[in-house]
Amino acid sequence: MPREVRIRVICTSLCHSDVTFWKMQVPPAICPRILGHEAVGVVESVGEDVCEVTKGDVVVPIFLPDCGECVDCKSSKSNLCSKFPFEVSPWMPRDGTSRFTDLKGEIIHHFLFVSSFSEYTVVDIANLTKIDSTIPPDRACLLSCGVSTGVGAAWRSAGVEPGSTVAIFGLGSIGLAVAEGARLCGAARIIGVDVNPEKYEIGKKFGLTEFVHAGESENKSVSQVITEMTGGGADYCFECVGMASLVQEAYASCRKGWGKTIVLGVEKPGSKLSLSCNEVLHSGKSLVGSLFGGLKPKSHVPILLKRYMDKELNLDEFVTHEVGFQDINKAFNLLTEGQCLRCVIWMDK
Amino acid sequence: MPREVRIRVICTSLCHSDVTFWKMQVPPAICPRILGHEAVGVVESVGEDVCEVTKGDVVVPIFLPDCGECVDCKSSKSNLCSKFPFEVSPWMPRDGTSRFTDLKGEIIHHFLFVSSFSEYTVVDIANLTKIDSTIPPDRACLLSCGVSTGVGAAWRSAGVEPGSTVAIFGLGSIGLAVAEGARLCGAARIIGVDVNPEKYEIGKKFGLTEFVHAGESENKSVSQVITEMTGGGADYCFECVGMASLVQEAYASCRKGWGKTIVLGVEKPGSKLSLSCNEVLHSGKSLVGSLFGGLKPKSHVPILLKRYMDKELNLDEFVTHEVGFQDINKAFNLLTEGQCLRCVIWMDK
Repeated sequence: MPREVRIRVICTSLCHSDVTFWKMQVPPAICPRILGHEAVGVVESVGEDVCEVTKGDVVVPIFLPDCGECVDCKSSKSNLCSKFPFEVSPWMPRDGTSRFTDLKGEIIHHFLFVSSFSEYTVVDIANLTKIDSTIPPDRACLLSCGVSTGVGAAWRSAGVEPGSTVAIFGLGSIGLAVAEGARLCGAARIIGVDVNPEKYEIGKKFGLTEFVHAGESENKSVSQVITEMTGGGADYCFECVGMASLVQEAYASCRKGWGKTIVLGVEKPGSKLSLSCNEVLHSGKSLVGSLFGGLKPKSHVPILLKRYMDKELNLDEFVTHEVGFQDINKAFNLLTEGQCLRCVIWMDK
Repeated sequence: MPREVRIRVICTSLCHSDVTFWKMQVPPAICPRILGHEAVGVVESVGEDVCEVTKGDVVVPIFLPDCGECVDCKSSKSNLCSKFPFEVSPWMPRDGTSRFTDLKGEIIHHFLFVSSFSEYTVVDIANLTKIDSTIPPDRACLLSCGVSTGVGAAWRSAGVEPGSTVAIFGLGSIGLAVAEGARLCGAARIIGVDVNPEKYEIGKKFGLTEFVHAGESENKSVSQVITEMTGGGADYCFECVGMASLVQEAYASCRKGWGKTIVLGVEKPGSKLSLSCNEVLHSGKSLVGSLFGGLKPKSHVPILLKRYMDKELNLDEFVTHEVGFQDINKAFNLLTEGQCLRCVIWMDK
C-alpha cells in the first residue's frame, strides 16, 4: 500500500509493554495480535510514495509516528505527530486495516504500528527511521522504545544541565536509561530510588552515583531523604514506574524554584495524580509529561546511535540476554521474573 | 535594627490578598495587624548594614524577599529566596518580632513583610527595591504584587514567544496583567475567559483579542471551546482565579506537545489538583507554579518600570480609582464589589 514498507525483522527486543498487552484481558488488548515493537529490520519492498527508504536499507520501526508534515513534526518543540496521534491501535495508521492474516484468511491485528515478533512485518513510513547499516542491530533495536524513552527524557524532556542533580524513581530499563541520559548530559549526582537494593550495582554501570532504598526508612519518606541528601531537592526528578503516588513523591523531591518532575511511567487508565494547589503555586516547580522521552524519532534516534558508535552512549550493558526466535518464551520469562534488562531475540537463530 | 529600613509610605494600592486576610477568621490571619502590601515609599532612615538605599531614596516594598546571597537569589532560574522563604508571617523576616505597637505598647502584627496601610512602616532590605524617583508612585506601587505577578507570569514563568496563542482564565487585575505581559511578549492571540462578559471590553485595553464567556455554553466545556478556536489548544494557559477545577480546565485547554499551564491563582489551603496520569504522560504538556510571576524583585521590577516609562507597558489603565487615606474603606468597597481594578490610596491626601 502507499507509504508502507515491508521489512524483514533482523532482531527484536522485549519491552514491558509487550508483556502488559500479552497479559491484558480488556481493550485496548485484542486477540489475535502480533506483539513486539522494539526491532531492527531490512527493507524488503516499498509501497508507492515511499522515497525515504529503499530495498536493503536498515530501519528501526518506532511506535511514535513522525509524519514530517504536520505542525508538530515541523516544530522543534513537539514530538507528538498530529497527523497520526499516538494510540495503541490494532491497525495500520492510515487506513485502519491489517496487513496480517492467518492461514484461514482471518485478520491478525497489529501492535503499536510495529508488530515485530514476526519474520516479516509492514510498517508505515511515518513509523520508520533509517539507520546506518554498520550499527549492530542488537543495539540499535533498543532505541525503538525503552532506552530512547529514558535517555530522551533526560536529554530532551528535562534538558538536564551539566553539574545538576537528578533523582530517578524506579530502576528498570527505562530508569537506568534515564541515568545513562543524565550521565551523557553531564549531571553531577544521579540518585536512584528502588525497592530492590541490588539495582544500585546495576545502576552504577549507567552513571548512578547514589541510591535510596525505598521503603527502608520507617521514619522518613523518600522525598524527605532526597531533600536532605541534596540540600533542598533534586534539580530533575523522573518517575519511571507508573504510580500516581510516586509522581507525587518525585514532585515533592524536586527543588523549589526550578525543579522539574518528568512523568515517564505508564499508569493504568483512569489513575489520577493529585497535587496540592498551593504547593504547585508556591514552588516554581514544573511537571512535564514525556512520551518517547520527547524524542523526534527520525531526527533524534540517529543522533543517539551516533553517540553509541562514538562510544559515548552505553547500550551494551542493557542487553543482558540474547536468544533465538524459537526461545521467545524464555525472553518473556526472563523479563517477568525481573532477570533481565533487555533480551534481544534474533529472528534467524 | 540592622538591615531594616524605615519608610514613609507615599501611596499604596489595594490587592485582593488584603481583602482576603481582612476577612479571614482563622490562622494565618491574626489581629491586630497592619495590612497593605502594594506601595511606594521614601526612605526615612536605615539600620546598620544597609548599603543599598539611603535617606530620600524611593523604594517599592515587595512581599517576596530577594536576599541576593542565597543559591536561589544568585540563580537566574529561581525567584524563591532560600534565606527568607516566602510565608504569610506576622513578623519581620530576620528576628521574628514586630516594629509596631499600639498606644498601650501592645504588639501590632506585620503583613507580608510590608504593612503599607500606615504612614510609616519598617521593611527589611531584602523586601525593598529601589526605583527611579521620577516614576509616578501611583503607577510604581502596582508592581509590588498583582500587576507584576501577571506580567511576570507571561514574561518569566511562561516565556511567551512572539506569535503564540495565550488563554487566560479569570480577568481580574492579575489576569489582565497576564494579557498585558503576553502582549508585551508579542503573543498573536490572547483569549480571555471569564464569567462576566463585560471583562472583554476592559481586557481589550490590555491586549485581549478574543473572549470566551465561561458557563455560557451548555454543550461544551471551556477547554473544548478553546481547543476548537485554536485548532488544538493554546500554547500557554494561565489560571488566575485559584480554583483547582479551573487549573484542570486550563491544562486541558493547552496544546499537546508543548503547551504550558501556569498556575497563579491562590486556592484555599488543602485544595487538591487532580490530573489524569496518562493525560500528563501522553501530552508533552507542562504545569508550572508561579509566585510573583517568576520575577526576581530587585532585578526585574526596575526593568518593568523602565518599560512603563518607555510607554511599552500599560500601567495607567489598571488604576481605575484614587482616594485619600481617610477613604481607604471606599477602596475596600470598590474592590469587593468588583468596581475597580486597582484603587490607589494616597497617604497625604
